[in-house]
Amino acid sequence: MKKDTSLDGLFRPRSVAVVGASRQPGGIGHEVVRNLVMGGFQGPVYPVNPRAEVVHSIRCHPDLASIPGEVDLVVIVVPAPAVEGVMRQAAKIGARGAVIVSAGFRETGVDGRAREERVLSVARKAGIRVIGPNCMGILNTEPGVALNASFAAETPIPGRVAFVSQSGALGEAILSRAKSRELGLRMFASVGNRADVGAHDLLAYWEHDPEVRVILLYLESFGDPEAFRIVAERLRGKKPIVAIKSGRSLAGRRAAGSHTGSVSGEDRVVETFLRQCGVLRVQSMPELFDTAQALLSQPRPDGPEVAVVTNAGGPGILATDALVGTGLTLCEFQTKTRKRLEKILPPEASVQNPVDLIASADALRYRKALRAVVADPKVSSLLVLFVSPIMIDAAAVARAIVEETRAKSMPVVACLMGRLGEKEGMGILRAAGIPVFEFPEEAALTLSNLVRQSERAARKSGRRPRIRVDATRARRILAAAKVSEDGWIQTKSVFRLLEHYGIPMATTMQATTPRGAAQAARKLGYPVCLKALSSALVHKSEHGGVVTGITSEEEILEQAHRILTALKPQYPDIALEIQAMAPGHRELLLGFRRDESFGPVFAVGFGGVAVEVLRDVAVRVAPLFENEPKLMLDSLRGAPLLGAFRGAPPVDRRIVEQSLLRLARLADDLPRIRELEINPFIADRPGGRTLGVDARARINLEQQ
Amino acid sequence: MKKDTSLDGLFRPRSVAVVGASRQPGGIGHEVVRNLVMGGFQGPVYPVNPRAEVVHSIRCHPDLASIPGEVDLVVIVVPAPAVEGVMRQAAKIGARGAVIVSAGFRETGVDGRAREERVLSVARKAGIRVIGPNCMGILNTEPGVALNASFAAETPIPGRVAFVSQSGALGEAILSRAKSRELGLRMFASVGNRADVGAHDLLAYWEHDPEVRVILLYLESFGDPEAFRIVAERLRGKKPIVAIKSGRSLAGRRAAGSHTGSVSGEDRVVETFLRQCGVLRVQSMPELFDTAQALLSQPRPDGPEVAVVTNAGGPGILATDALVGTGLTLCEFQTKTRKRLEKILPPEASVQNPVDLIASADALRYRKALRAVVADPKVSSLLVLFVSPIMIDAAAVARAIVEETRAKSMPVVACLMGRLGEKEGMGILRAAGIPVFEFPEEAALTLSNLVRQSERAARKSGRRPRIRVDATRARRILAAAKVSEDGWIQTKSVFRLLEHYGIPMATTMQATTPRGAAQAARKLGYPVCLKALSSALVHKSEHGGVVTGITSEEEILEQAHRILTALKPQYPDIALEIQAMAPGHRELLLGFRRDESFGPVFAVGFGGVAVEVLRDVAVRVAPLFENEPKLMLDSLRGAPLLGAFRGAPPVDRRIVEQSLLRLARLADDLPRIRELEINPFIADRPGGRTLGVDARARINLEQQ
Repeated sequence: MKKDTSLDGLFRPRSVAVVGASRQPGGIGHEVVRNLVMGGFQGPVYPVNPRAEVVHSIRCHPDLASIPGEVDLVVIVVPAPAVEGVMRQAAKIGARGAVIVSAGFRETGVDGRAREERVLSVARKAGIRVIGPNCMGILNTEPGVALNASFAAETPIPGRVAFVSQSGALGEAILSRAKSRELGLRMFASVGNRADVGAHDLLAYWEHDPEVRVILLYLESFGDPEAFRIVAERLRGKKPIVAIKSGRSLAGRRAAGSHTGSVSGEDRVVETFLRQCGVLRVQSMPELFDTAQALLSQPRPDGPEVAVVTNAGGPGILATDALVGTGLTLCEFQTKTRKRLEKILPPEASVQNPVDLIASADALRYRKALRAVVADPKVSSLLVLFVSPIMIDAAAVARAIVEETRAKSMPVVACLMGRLGEKEGMGILRAAGIPVFEFPEEAALTLSNLVRQSERAARKSGRRPRIRVDATRARRILAAAKVSEDGWIQTKSVFRLLEHYGIPMATTMQATTPRGAAQAARKLGYPVCLKALSSALVHKSEHGGVVTGITSEEEILEQAHRILTALKPQYPDIALEIQAMAPGHRELLLGFRRDESFGPVFAVGFGGVAVEVLRDVAVRVAPLFENEPKLMLDSLRGAPLLGAFRGAPPVDRRIVEQSLLRLARLADDLPRIRELEINPFIADRPGGRTLGVDARARINLEQQ
Repeated sequence: MKKDTSLDGLFRPRSVAVVGASRQPGGIGHEVVRNLVMGGFQGPVYPVNPRAEVVHSIRCHPDLASIPGEVDLVVIVVPAPAVEGVMRQAAKIGARGAVIVSAGFRETGVDGRAREERVLSVARKAGIRVIGPNCMGILNTEPGVALNASFAAETPIPGRVAFVSQSGALGEAILSRAKSRELGLRMFASVGNRADVGAHDLLAYWEHDPEVRVILLYLESFGDPEAFRIVAERLRGKKPIVAIKSGRSLAGRRAAGSHTGSVSGEDRVVETFLRQCGVLRVQSMPELFDTAQALLSQPRPDGPEVAVVTNAGGPGILATDALVGTGLTLCEFQTKTRKRLEKILPPEASVQNPVDLIASADALRYRKALRAVVADPKVSSLLVLFVSPIMIDAAAVARAIVEETRAKSMPVVACLMGRLGEKEGMGILRAAGIPVFEFPEEAALTLSNLVRQSERAARKSGRRPRIRVDATRARRILAAAKVSEDGWIQTKSVFRLLEHYGIPMATTMQATTPRGAAQAARKLGYPVCLKALSSALVHKSEHGGVVTGITSEEEILEQAHRILTALKPQYPDIALEIQAMAPGHRELLLGFRRDESFGPVFAVGFGGVAVEVLRDVAVRVAPLFENEPKLMLDSLRGAPLLGAFRGAPPVDRRIVEQSLLRLARLADDLPRIRELEINPFIADRPGGRTLGVDARARINLEQQ
């Protein structure tokens, strides 16, 4: 991917003008100038304000046109209605970037949106890249630039982290906490309404900055998920991306919607999307910082197997609980390791994992034990605990931890609880880049994030499946299908479409009378299944409208009569469907629906009535690579039911997986279909007859 | 309950002797004397050591007998083999309490256990209450006592929290953190091996200390769950108990087992036990401290409805996510409240919950908005966020929060993010007793713990059910039952027992030949169910040993023949069971098993093959009060399936609940039965025929 320099005008300007600069300390128009000057920006700063002579000891200009030199970046802090005029001036003088701090745009409703679009259109024509509006500004700590074009109170210390925040207020908090935690930042952008530059542009920009090692995101919604996915995919394995995506809860999404004016998708879609992109999602701000710091200093773990070394039982158990709770495992040591530990440790100590060196352990015992543990090839990462007892020098133990783990390429985190020399010990560990915590739970969570990140970095996205289908013919079938007022496609046509895509569906016949049903059953052969059929009947089972296992003509006549009599009053177009019983033994569901932001979202899970209650369903956002269906099935809670289980044979997973991929192709070919579900899709043993026996699909009526 | 003063000799002694006192600073025998003296103990301290003249400026005695005055409490820090002798001396001089700091007892194995029992037997005979062995000591900050009989480095500040720790090392960390967080302690006990005094003794002791307001526990196992339950039950609604119980994970329990020498039960049993006792379980040390502090200062919320007031969107969304994630809800305001807010706030603000006052909000706007929000009767608790923008005085906002919420009896927590005056603002909130956090997630978690605690405090334990059963006859049935080598009771007898307890079971006949099976089926009436029967066949369905829905003589003859032929070689005692088909529509399981520490643990859930995979089962520890079965059913993920669902009728919950209570009575009456499971228990519509169709039970072979 070619290096994109179009954001250089924003982050590496040679000069900056601040339109709306103000003499009043504390005012935003003043703070931006102050930050630029106090931050040591390496080019000239031009305050612009027709009603001021001097701002922060710098001569003021009445407008952009009066500035004698070139202007690369324009920071705009004037009221919203004046922004368009400023942007026109900026275009005239050849600016390359604009940061619009001013609020009063899309976030305020229809008028604001129109205003934002007018401003953007001016910028686009002039080739000006825009950050904001409604944002806090941007920073770049790079030596030779030293740009703080924001009204933040803190100038961060330089470092290797880049941060995008969709919330200005949170940006302020982030900068403040980063400083107090000594987390160095390379660049920071508060993107506000993202009229132009969004998270994906910044990811692409940082892709080529070798000084950016870790990228952090605070997101409330996705501007362009597809663009995000593509660049995140390129960064996978190169630069870890860690994100807080708020709106996990429905209430949170509603609040985000009214806050940003953009709607965010269902959270499990967001969750799978981020996972598919290789982004590590964390749940809280402290977790975000802890993880970023650990990613900067620690190597990638090659597996989930942790060794715990402690001098106290209780904290060792808490750490073990926390590690297992986050999905990590405590490895069993090699016999050799246990033997080595037995030689080193007193008999009351534990040579199993967690290794308990007991309270009398001094730096030397830590040293010997750590040496044995890190040499064990089963150990992928290490958590060292120390509760300082009387007489033991915590600083010496800290040095032992640093020195014994230095040569090993595995992540190490430490937890120092207690008192004596604790601060000194913490300082020694921090200086050596070993993340150190007060409580074992925080250490465990950080380690588990390193492992999750490593797994995501390593995961290759699969190939696109190759499926041969005549898409033109599919479109013809769809065009010819009868569709109800609310967009439901007639079942017969849904079956035909699915069969066209090679998805096995049960042979189905239709009838309008009991006698017709009996005739169909004779053709199909008993046992059969009888279903009520009406355009208005969504859940057939609700009114006794599905009878399975009919074994005789007498029975089908009786049931058909009952269904027709019972449902006719409410559903005048009632008819009957007769199907041969599917021989399989597990009911699944397969389907997709189109998400407004993410496009097709595919689902597979256990079907039938129980599924809606137990929600054992795996989802994936398109594109569905060849390897995904297998992973989806593996992730189901009920996955063991797909194998040989309690006398029942395994199901034919290959057909299920293939059918999902074929469904994905269908979703690609027929964008008018808004949702489609095969339920139940009855899976049979390998070589048996796996069949979908019911399906429904709906088109988007607004789109022609 | 009468006040128990037997622990006064430990926590309120008039004098203390330290046997094993040492001149060497840093040694445990020295630190204990130092802590007693420096802690300002109000009575005399007597160091005992035959090889020292003076310890910490106090004249030393060669042994306990040489001490001139009375000795209430003896702290023992001599090597383990010498402890028994010291205890004999203590008994002679009339001591009332002993703290055994020394290690080398039960935690080291069989010999240590015997040593511990010998020491304890001496103490018991003399009426000496014992803390430890293998502990860090005890503290009581009560004025007039000021006892620090421990080797902890920190003397806590006095306060209203009492703390029991089963881990000495963790105790050290706890005392250190409590001090740095300004959490005041009333008493602290590190109980070590709990040879005598355990958590339940301390709970009973603190029950009558009006200065103890909150009790914190760190537990690795339960010494006497029944005693614990009884005292916790008495404290319910009076003093909150908050616990960390480690060993959530299997690996953690194993580590705990090897650490303390006592085995802890399965974690979900622990979980339900603590919940039934009204104890609030938390997962981490920071959470424990945050919750304790909030419980001390905040009133009890009367529901889960929270209002969030913020001046920044992003943090508001994060708080909302976190609140919803912990099970709380954001209430919808009354129209009146929204109208009031509309008048007060600028149009860009949000008058919905979370209320967004936007960045321009000053103390006055906070004040007005808070006044409107706390007046809304729908609001049960309040989370206030403030991200300090430029020009807004955080201290003034903090004062507004304090003053506007002071009169209201609802919990308030705050989160201050950002910079200006943040420290001052935090100080103002803390001084007013409002818990204040750096991050919204911590504030939300604390609030949710207040709500959980309040729910547990309010929950009444139900009545014991009254069930009339002839227990003698039940014992006779059990005594007469055939039992396999590994303890399984013959199915016929299990059915008879269950029927005797009034639990409805399907009529079952047995046969040994296909012809016999067909005869039985004719008597029962088709359709029937046919099952393989063998003492060695545990999961009947595994070998095609269960055929349901047999509708004809032809079919039963064929299937019976197939089963007998197929299974005879492996199961020589193979026979057949014939049952009328149960007409119900939901498969449940009911059962219990005896836990080593907690006694009978009852389970109810969805039955059949899927249950073992999806594990949708609710458990409760005995005693099972009358109201519990209903709550158990409500807590199932699949609970909606028990009501009318998708055309299926509701199930007869009353019979299911009654059967569970009857099962509990059976477990009470027949302690030899180690486990019993009815699966499936097929629930029918109310008034229908709900029936257990299979059941197995096993007796404890070691117990006669």
